Amino acid sequence: MKIGIVMGSTSDWNVMKGAVDILESFGVEHEVKVLSAHRTPHQLEEWVKDLRQRGFASVIAGAGGAAHLAGVVAAFTTLPVIGVPVKGAAFEGMDSLLSMVQMPSGIPVAVVAVNGAKNAALLAIEIMAVTDQNLKDKMDSFRKEQAEKVLSSTLS
Amino acid sequence: MKIGIVMGSTSDWNVMKGAVDILESFGVEHEVKVLSAHRTPHQLEEWVKDLRQRGFASVIAGAGGAAHLAGVVAAFTTLPVIGVPVKGAAFEGMDSLLSMVQMPSGIPVAVVAVNGAKNAALLAIEIMAVTDQNLKDKMDSFRKEQAEKVLSSTLS
Amino acid sequence: MKIGIVMGSTSDWNVMKGAVDILESFGVEHEVKVLSAHRTPHQLEEWVKDLRQRGFASVIAGAGGAAHLAGVVAAFTTLPVIGVPVKGAAFEGMDSLLSMVQMPSGIPVAVVAVNGAKNAALLAIEIMAVTDQNLKDKMDSFRKEQAEKVLSSTLS
Amino acid sequence: MKIGIVMGSTSDWNVMKGAVDILESFGVEHEVKVLSAHRTPHQLEEWVKDLRQRGFASVIAGAGGAAHLAGVVAAFTTLPVIGVPVKGAAFEGMDSLLSMVQMPSGIPVAVVAVNGAKNAALLAIEIMAVTDQNLKDKMDSFRKEQAEKVLSSTLS
Amino acid sequence: MKIGIVMGSTSDWNVMKGAVDILESFGVEHEVKVLSAHRTPHQLEEWVKDLRQRGFASVIAGAGGAAHLAGVVAAFTTLPVIGVPVKGAAFEGMDSLLSMVQMPSGIPVAVVAVNGAKNAALLAIEIMAVTDQNLKDKMDSFRKEQAEKVLSSTLS
Amino acid sequence: MKIGIVMGSTSDWNVMKGAVDILESFGVEHEVKVLSAHRTPHQLEEWVKDLRQRGFASVIAGAGGAAHLAGVVAAFTTLPVIGVPVKGAAFEGMDSLLSMVQMPSGIPVAVVAVNGAKNAALLAIEIMAVTDQNLKDKMDSFRKEQAEKVLSSTLS
Amino acid sequence: MKIGIVMGSTSDWNVMKGAVDILESFGVEHEVKVLSAHRTPHQLEEWVKDLRQRGFASVIAGAGGAAHLAGVVAAFTTLPVIGVPVKGAAFEGMDSLLSMVQMPSGIPVAVVAVNGAKNAALLAIEIMAVTDQNLKDKMDSFRKEQAEKVLSSTLS
Amino acid sequence: MKIGIVMGSTSDWNVMKGAVDILESFGVEHEVKVLSAHRTPHQLEEWVKDLRQRGFASVIAGAGGAAHLAGVVAAFTTLPVIGVPVKGAAFEGMDSLLSMVQMPSGIPVAVVAVNGAKNAALLAIEIMAVTDQNLKDKMDSFRKEQAEKVLSSTLS
Repeated sequence: MKIGIVMGSTSDWNVMKGAVDILESFGVEHEVKVLSAHRTPHQLEEWVKDLRQRGFASVIAGAGGAAHLAGVVAAFTTLPVIGVPVKGAAFEGMDSLLSMVQMPSGIPVAVVAVNGAKNAALLAIEIMAVTDQNLKDKMDSFRKEQAEKVLSSTLS
Repeated sequence: MKIGIVMGSTSDWNVMKGAVDILESFGVEHEVKVLSAHRTPHQLEEWVKDLRQRGFASVIAGAGGAAHLAGVVAAFTTLPVIGVPVKGAAFEGMDSLLSMVQMPSGIPVAVVAVNGAKNAALLAIEIMAVTDQNLKDKMDSFRKEQAEKVLSSTLS
Repeated sequence: MKIGIVMGSTSDWNVMKGAVDILESFGVEHEVKVLSAHRTPHQLEEWVKDLRQRGFASVIAGAGGAAHLAGVVAAFTTLPVIGVPVKGAAFEGMDSLLSMVQMPSGIPVAVVAVNGAKNAALLAIEIMAVTDQNLKDKMDSFRKEQAEKVLSSTLS
Repeated sequence: MKIGIVMGSTSDWNVMKGAVDILESFGVEHEVKVLSAHRTPHQLEEWVKDLRQRGFASVIAGAGGAAHLAGVVAAFTTLPVIGVPVKGAAFEGMDSLLSMVQMPSGIPVAVVAVNGAKNAALLAIEIMAVTDQNLKDKMDSFRKEQAEKVLSSTLS
Repeated sequence: MKIGIVMGSTSDWNVMKGAVDILESFGVEHEVKVLSAHRTPHQLEEWVKDLRQRGFASVIAGAGGAAHLAGVVAAFTTLPVIGVPVKGAAFEGMDSLLSMVQMPSGIPVAVVAVNGAKNAALLAIEIMAVTDQNLKDKMDSFRKEQAEKVLSSTLS
Repeated sequence: MKIGIVMGSTSDWNVMKGAVDILESFGVEHEVKVLSAHRTPHQLEEWVKDLRQRGFASVIAGAGGAAHLAGVVAAFTTLPVIGVPVKGAAFEGMDSLLSMVQMPSGIPVAVVAVNGAKNAALLAIEIMAVTDQNLKDKMDSFRKEQAEKVLSSTLS
Repeated sequence: MKIGIVMGSTSDWNVMKGAVDILESFGVEHEVKVLSAHRTPHQLEEWVKDLRQRGFASVIAGAGGAAHLAGVVAAFTTLPVIGVPVKGAAFEGMDSLLSMVQMPSGIPVAVVAVNGAKNAALLAIEIMAVTDQNLKDKMDSFRKEQAEKVLSSTLS
Repeated sequence: MKIGIVMGSTSDWNVMKGAVDILESFGVEHEVKVLSAHRTPHQLEEWVKDLRQRGFASVIAGAGGAAHLAGVVAAFTTLPVIGVPVKGAAFEGMDSLLSMVQMPSGIPVAVVAVNGAKNAALLAIEIMAVTDQNLKDKMDSFRKEQAEKVLSSTLS
């Protein structure tokens, strides 16, 4: 299965490539798109509506400001949609966080931290790992490695 | 010309009828719809895309929480879109305000105060009054009346 | 597969039963626990660490204030953890939202709206539906029904 | 018809010239003024009160801090007034946003994003385009171009 | 000398009468007006511009939402202007506080707490007491009384 | 008469010298002190309690963070106390603003904008000008000059 | 040893008696005072400066709004000072939280949750329990009891 | 007795070494650890649970973002736990402040200012000084020195 990654603008790429890095380190297939809920709504819908049939397990959507992208994606699919609020020019990302997380009842979006693209990818992998023992084992290893990294920290 | 009013849920009606009251007092034709950017995206698009041809001058969109409605309407029309952030269950309407006002460059939404449906209607009328002398005169009268109301205030 | 629901205090039940209602309407098995990250950390860990082996697909954690519950659950499992920030006595739920959503890189939590327990359950079902065609079909029906509900709205 | 642009201080020019750029690219006439609601109230009123007679369709007002400019302009005209909250030295523009958007019932201001001068100009053009087919066509072209720009994005 | 009290709407009277109560208890003459910066700008200017000649020592201005009243008063007089941010329908008074306190350099407003009309009156009296020994003595007595009230508190 | 200026730390001087500049340009005598409400409470009280007898008309207090300085000064004098919230290392000055402006009923502080030391000085002069025609005239000139500066602005 | 409890106003008693309840249930001696940092500064200092000699181990200070009480207490003693931000009429207690917690370097205050008087008392007991085995044992029992209460929760 | 210092990540060290500097200047023994509530929960619990037996008087915990560290430490010890909210990549430290300070009733954390590691150390010393006359005397000297530093300030 694959993970879709979509962002509203190339300016989000600096943050969103963190998700790609994680997916690549886990060997998970993915497809990256720049599509805007406001500027290219039809192309966004086109891309979203086939994702399940094309073998995708979830979609990661990153956007800043009035970040409607994740919610609009969630309107066109029942795959899990993971939102990454991207910190923009004002309000330290609070605008994108609230625009993503306060979704109305009926259309869920799974929101991670401001600029938290890496955790979005880890969540996408955890979702696949529910039924994929191989990914589950890799996630266990990842957790162990990051624990060891903490334990071997040195302060200077 | 007519004004479109759309809200994401019947729970917004309590606020949005303030816009209808103003439009009726100015004798401005209008059409009211309940349509959700997330739950009925296609029906919303269908309604929005013909508005100009059907003789509408602007659209007023009211929604709460992650209020994507106004932005999604703006994606499907180049008519002026006026957003009314509706105060919901948390954050005193800050979530809907930021979700409406922080639109990305290229797709504007004209935002009024939290629960400011009356001002949304007045703004819609001002837009029509740019080229409609009759509405312009009515707006002048409205301004005079509300000034007189202030001046005749009594404190008890 | 089953869904685990845990809350930090019985005072969260009023909100969290919204998740149970959704799971029951979809016929999804679930287990509900009251366990605190601070008051019963060992019992929480005990419950969390066996969930995958016991056939759970995800955990929904609801808490208010300094809402550490979802993050602490996520520390003990690689199942997807869904956080529901519960509105408490101050700050309109902003304290629980930030305590849940701003997780450090490496340990994701999927956060929904303040008091958004229903969406947490829908998200949990979407995760199961990635590989469960029956739940996928039920979710499609749910979406259709809620769209019809919007379309048949009447304003009075 | 023309668009008026007013700002409270030359320090707002860096942001507000974004509006001028848009108007020029659409070939829309405009007049730019530096006038303060507090330091030059009479000159501001003088300028505002004749705008309609002088053929203006709307006014764009940009200011930071306790941004009273747009509201004071709106007190002296029934032309649509568009407010641009300018990010100042504190609060990330929240002070100017709230000072502009929370206008009392009766005197509307159409507020765009913090530093959103470009969208203010696009909104001003949309208002003119309600009755100006030529501008409507230009706006359609603008939308198409920006969609193409998104679709041709490359990530590196 | 006298103190002017102005509020933007009769809905502010519930708060602003706290200022009147204090002024009456100190035997300070005052004049109360309902005048709006947006709805009655000329009448407001008329009232403000003569205040010094008419023997006023300062003006207390109370308003909610986008509270421009105090700033607009300050634009028309060099008497000290004291702003009372009135808590409105949203944001707990943060909108009126920021609209009053973040005044641009050159036109000061002296802001007290949200709904702090009593302190506004005490401040107005302190200003008069700079050169009025009688009021200075009364203020000393007031301070003593309120200290005694604290010291004689009983908890039950 | 003289104006007292006190700040909690030398790190506030960068902001507070703006007040000194204004006072010097108006030829108003002043005394500047670094005294902390928490670190030197007795010396602060010593300095404050004689100010009226020593011919001071008001005190300007600037501090950041949990900015208790203005409130503590106000506890020891019935001279008007003007608070300048200084922007510190976090929260953009919101902590110092709220610490100064939300004073309890009975002990007023007159608060100006974050880092608004210049306006604090102008307010102090306005207070003196209530009974000082010379300063009143100077303030009128100041206002005229700053209006002319706005009117002669050039945008490049 | 004893615990001092001080609050700025009788209106804080509703919250602060939570601290008394905890201290009584642990059998810890305490003294409760209503004293204001602004209205009764000398009496507050008098009470604070002898506390250590009179056998007090710490002071709990509760106040709302611009909550200077804890900081002013901390200026007059090197005993641990515990601050309880009391939720007042605006800002959900954010004003009192920031006024207490953002203390300058050199004078610490230990802040607990908004209205968290019970935790303030538990913290005061934990401080005594550092060298008091009996209180340490009681705290262990308290922890066990509250864990059992969570574990025996029933949801209805 | 000793003071434990724990931080969630080496990136907190820049702030937390301020605590070490203070402890060293008072000659107080301490132990510094990097341990994460989420990445190394078992090692954290191991370290915390023996602290009292190993002669520690309190624990200082510094973390950013969803800062669960102090709360999780407090779940495993009845020693006083002092939380230092570390300013992270968003929200100016508000996320870590609320995550630390809004602890549920029953498990207290003593929170200091954002990045207030020095005050955390001073608070830890004050706690020890309740029963340690030598440290009490050192703290008195520290207070005197910092008062003298304020009094000898020069402004340039």
